[in-house]
Amino acid sequence: MGSADYKGKASELLIENDIKIGQSINIHTNNGKYSGILLPRYELFDDNHVVIKLRNGYNIGINLTKIRSIEKVNSDSQYDVYKFKKELHNLIQTIGRADSSDQNKDEGKLPKVALISTGGTIGSKIDYRTGGVTSVLSASDLYLSVPEISKYASVDTDALLNEYSENLRPEHWTLMANKIIEKVNMGIYRGIILSHGTDTMHYSSAALSFALRDIPIPVILTGAQRSSDRPSSDAALNLIGATKFAVESEYSGVFVIMHAEASDNLLACHLGTRVRKNHTSSRDAFESIDIKPVALINGENIKMQHNPTLELQSRKDANYSSYKTSFDRHVILLKFYPGFEPALISQVVQSGYKAIIFEGTGLGHVGDECIAPLKQAIDSGTMIFMTSQCIWGRVNMNVYETGRDLLQIGVVPLSDMTPETALVKAMWLLADNQRYEDMKKLMQENICNEISSVSPIQTDKK
Amino acid sequence: MGSADYKGKASELLIENDIKIGQSINIHTNNGKYSGILLPRYELFDDNHVVIKLRNGYNIGINLTKIRSIEKVNSDSQYDVYKFKKELHNLIQTIGRADSSDQNKDEGKLPKVALISTGGTIGSKIDYRTGGVTSVLSASDLYLSVPEISKYASVDTDALLNEYSENLRPEHWTLMANKIIEKVNMGIYRGIILSHGTDTMHYSSAALSFALRDIPIPVILTGAQRSSDRPSSDAALNLIGATKFAVESEYSGVFVIMHAEASDNLLACHLGTRVRKNHTSSRDAFESIDIKPVALINGENIKMQHNPTLELQSRKDANYSSYKTSFDRHVILLKFYPGFEPALISQVVQSGYKAIIFEGTGLGHVGDECIAPLKQAIDSGTMIFMTSQCIWGRVNMNVYETGRDLLQIGVVPLSDMTPETALVKAMWLLADNQRYEDMKKLMQENICNEISSVSPIQTDKK
Repeated sequence: MGSADYKGKASELLIENDIKIGQSINIHTNNGKYSGILLPRYELFDDNHVVIKLRNGYNIGINLTKIRSIEKVNSDSQYDVYKFKKELHNLIQTIGRADSSDQNKDEGKLPKVALISTGGTIGSKIDYRTGGVTSVLSASDLYLSVPEISKYASVDTDALLNEYSENLRPEHWTLMANKIIEKVNMGIYRGIILSHGTDTMHYSSAALSFALRDIPIPVILTGAQRSSDRPSSDAALNLIGATKFAVESEYSGVFVIMHAEASDNLLACHLGTRVRKNHTSSRDAFESIDIKPVALINGENIKMQHNPTLELQSRKDANYSSYKTSFDRHVILLKFYPGFEPALISQVVQSGYKAIIFEGTGLGHVGDECIAPLKQAIDSGTMIFMTSQCIWGRVNMNVYETGRDLLQIGVVPLSDMTPETALVKAMWLLADNQRYEDMKKLMQENICNEISSVSPIQTDKK
Repeated sequence: MGSADYKGKASELLIENDIKIGQSINIHTNNGKYSGILLPRYELFDDNHVVIKLRNGYNIGINLTKIRSIEKVNSDSQYDVYKFKKELHNLIQTIGRADSSDQNKDEGKLPKVALISTGGTIGSKIDYRTGGVTSVLSASDLYLSVPEISKYASVDTDALLNEYSENLRPEHWTLMANKIIEKVNMGIYRGIILSHGTDTMHYSSAALSFALRDIPIPVILTGAQRSSDRPSSDAALNLIGATKFAVESEYSGVFVIMHAEASDNLLACHLGTRVRKNHTSSRDAFESIDIKPVALINGENIKMQHNPTLELQSRKDANYSSYKTSFDRHVILLKFYPGFEPALISQVVQSGYKAIIFEGTGLGHVGDECIAPLKQAIDSGTMIFMTSQCIWGRVNMNVYETGRDLLQIGVVPLSDMTPETALVKAMWLLADNQRYEDMKKLMQENICNEISSVSPIQTDKK
């Protein structure tokens, strides 16, 4: 492909100098020299810039008019990488000595953290299928490209998967959970970081919350909203914050750490079962639903937030054995809307689904056309659970007649659980071959802070 | 049923005095007399309060310990209602004379507004099916219970429907649109208000936006989040704001007016195609998506907000003929999630749906398992449209390989249109028997401000 995706003047310049995507290059400009790896350009972008990934993890676009000369760095000699790794080693040593926090006093050693990569934008310099640069997606490359994390931890890397997160399925959650358990039971890690695509990160964080219930150390999912071919990726700060929290958190459990603001300052740490991606592209797309983030991370400062309804678990030293990492796909998520065809309900039952998670309207409603087919579905043994498409707030099916009718026929309300978490929880419970009555009960019980209990009187206050 | 739902001490007091739900009563307390209609209590509530609806539209709960005596007002004489209506008439006359705004100079007359009721919490004193008090749900009763609106307009009322909005279907949108057109073409109304349940108000407002495209006057949907058996309903302020905007707005089109804050001060006016119910129960549940509200209403002050991407239409004097009020239900909305069964796609095609609106992940993705069945669906003539379950932000399928693959097979991206508006728009276009190629094009074109155009370069900035 060569300088694939570059066009016009930029493409000419690259061909002239025999430079291909993924190569290490030096660009000499009027303002000085820039060294880095040539990234691809997307079709829609202009042909006036060449984009390189700098060693500090950031990307810059350099205007052609500013370029005096451009040269390949001889990649055969591996000079750059060697030098970089050496510099990094020195840096770690220096910081290790300079930093005298409690964890580091033990023979100048930093606490150990495992970084498991699964794919997604965070590890992505270019599209996976353009080839050549794919290897830079691994956890070890991530580690190398964000040297700041070595200030907080000694990081062991493991490349588990290389998938955009829209391609992850319940069986991948099992794979992740088992890998994490393996790491935990090595007994040497203070925390575990999972780099993950953002599209379904909140589904995975919920799945891991259930699968890794009672895990003794913190597990942090993080990723990037801006792919590295954008001038400013959020990958570096997210990874730094995740590392810091993995080392310093007093609490165990599954968390998501992403930007809390559009600017590159504040991070939020969300609970795995109570977070949602609420923007397609902004850095601060992830939000805690119906609770505050567990913590805010501002530079060196981790500030825990007060959430009276949450019960966070403290770190434990124990080994970890009480896990259940399977998921059963026979659960379907359906959103109700005006014009929703009630016949769909019986079709779903006939297709062999064992449970339906409804995203109802408002306090947990569906149209009266659906009552009869829902009753039929329940009578034939399908479990029907109710959440709300409003996203925020609590399902309360006692307020209106529609809700009472649905309760009457056996629809199970799920309080303030998000539809996404409800789906994952049902898949997790189902895999354990729960008796349906037990499962309905467990769906309504708080297992991993996915439900906040309040008295019914308070359910309509924000 | 008598004092149905009351229990314990409250029930005893009511039975003792032979007072039933819906009756006009006087309650004498240490702080004075309260007159109103006895409302029911829900099972979950305590037995220490009696709740009545006051004439000003508000409900109060009176603690039993404060009650000195309680008495029925003889409802045979209709004294209360007669007196109330007379007072109201006098009030309208007084305000009509005192108010000298431009619209009112013409023979001291107030501008005329039509108030069409469709049901929902706003017109609800008790549950519909408990009988007896159902009649107070009509538009005329709403008008009577919120006398403040007669300060701004002379209101003609029309009881069109009496449904909770989860029971409204596309055929009801047609009914509403036709009724509104009938009112518009009477040529006497400055604006039209539709009282509506909140559960699907945003679907209806989108549907009416398309069906009433180019309507010459403003149409405002409003409702209440707190049913009137709660101490403080939001119905009154919403109705007052809607009336004010109906009279004073320079712009025509379809809008939603609801609380902008949890407190009872500020209202927001949202565009019909760009609004969503984002909380199950709070007063400020409705939010504009990806734009600012069209206006904020603070007491007497309507402040228009600057939205550079919107093109609002000015009021017109013309009659109204260019409408198309039918909707075709052969559209399905599916949300993608990890574990989504690709077989569902072919089942949907076989069920006769002509279009699928996907709520994809992130920038508009579904898992790679779905690509083949989606291609098959498209090849067999089903239209596939892509929106995002993130709710905020814009679909952009050029960024990642998954998106490009989906574009390649013919999936149509819908930019920043909400899934709900996309569903309704597809139903509306389909009813017009558009050729599929025309329909795909129209789905991507901005008809009622449902899409904001931006250059592709800017799509990932919040």
